Amino acid sequence: MARVKCVVEYDGSNYCGYQIQPNGKTVQEEIEKALKTMHKGKEVRIIASGRTDSGVHAKGQVFHFDTSLDVPENRWVRALETLMPSDIYVKSAEYVPEDFHAQFDVEEKEYRYYVKAAKTRDVFRRGMVFHYPRKLDVEKMLEAVKLFEGKHDFTAFCSAKTTLKGNKIRTISRAELNQHGDELEFIVRGDGFLYNMVRIMMGTLLEIGAGKKEIDTIPRALEEHNRRLAGFTTPGHGLFLWEVTY
Amino acid sequence: MARVKCVVEYDGSNYCGYQIQPNGKTVQEEIEKALKTMHKGKEVRIIASGRTDSGVHAKGQVFHFDTSLDVPENRWVRALETLMPSDIYVKSAEYVPEDFHAQFDVEEKEYRYYVKAAKTRDVFRRGMVFHYPRKLDVEKMLEAVKLFEGKHDFTAFCSAKTTLKGNKIRTISRAELNQHGDELEFIVRGDGFLYNMVRIMMGTLLEIGAGKKEIDTIPRALEEHNRRLAGFTTPGHGLFLWEVTY
Repeated sequence: MARVKCVVEYDGSNYCGYQIQPNGKTVQEEIEKALKTMHKGKEVRIIASGRTDSGVHAKGQVFHFDTSLDVPENRWVRALETLMPSDIYVKSAEYVPEDFHAQFDVEEKEYRYYVKAAKTRDVFRRGMVFHYPRKLDVEKMLEAVKLFEGKHDFTAFCSAKTTLKGNKIRTISRAELNQHGDELEFIVRGDGFLYNMVRIMMGTLLEIGAGKKEIDTIPRALEEHNRRLAGFTTPGHGLFLWEVTY
Repeated sequence: MARVKCVVEYDGSNYCGYQIQPNGKTVQEEIEKALKTMHKGKEVRIIASGRTDSGVHAKGQVFHFDTSLDVPENRWVRALETLMPSDIYVKSAEYVPEDFHAQFDVEEKEYRYYVKAAKTRDVFRRGMVFHYPRKLDVEKMLEAVKLFEGKHDFTAFCSAKTTLKGNKIRTISRAELNQHGDELEFIVRGDGFLYNMVRIMMGTLLEIGAGKKEIDTIPRALEEHNRRLAGFTTPGHGLFLWEVTY
């Protein structure tokens, strides 16, 4: 047996998220189906760095699996490519030590969220950008985004639907906002993320930009653990799991 | 009665082209359905600058229609927007003189074609870029593309499926190739285009880049009206009707 680590890109538009579930097609299911074909009908379970929700995309999701096949490292990508649907692309595969674990060994994850803050739509980016047609004070948002950096208790930025038992303290090493034309790009990197955390951070920034909340709502929400001081949860389709480091 | 001119953007991925036909959903049908609703059930026929094929996109297709509704110019866009599917977006609407004709009055059209010439795929651009994973001599292609400019008989660059009776002489005012990362962008502007003309021009450039044809195949094809001297027809999904001028 050998352990293989893969990096995969997917357009989440047509999937009910990453993780296998009773109803609806998932990314995990498609990859496992391809691996099963390669393994002549034997089930192969993959373990990812974490799940992504319905509609959420990935530029660099990571998963591992164990195989008894004797495939040269550089052939995995080509072999999987022939079995993959057009919206999932396994970009790389490499053999790793057998104690490597795609979920438990994560050092940091980076997410990116895209917003189009113009009145006009863009049909070609519709499944990848959240359309929020409001006038935004971007200067204010640039100031606000920095307040996420550091080690904080992110209870206020976690969906009530979470099943997490442990503490909600996470360290954000990078939080920044960029403007590309009329699109905003929110980049956030940290050692862990709670359920809907990036989408609530994004919603908070947008409400600050739109003048519905003040900048100090962020430190207050972090301090008081009050979900209502944070903003709304932006939709999944603007979100990308960009990179996972180990 | 008043005549309205609209500019529309659409993602052609889910349509059997622009023009209404017996089988499959078309862009024209969707727009006419919305106008029919606005006109309380009365059929409204729209006339576009020309049709686009299955899978082909538009950034700036133009159409006109006649209406008896008394809608202020700046309200048409908003009214249509509420009735339009997410992959069609009517960007502008204006009243024009009643002798304006979206097809007959065209001065020039601009098309753009996108190619990804890398081994790797990009799932997010898959419906908008033709994936041609070959090593290309872009310098050669840059030299070749200029040979399309000017007034020529484009018989060699026209699909045999054409039903056109008239002459095949067209004037290309601009033909250029740009590189953005590993994507190539072919821009071509002219007073008229034959059936599949841009896609055959693109295929010819790619065959020159890949070393399958020499640069002089273009002047020879133009001179000899020989379809076989031109290249293959690239697929529709990399093509955009970019702009129509009057």
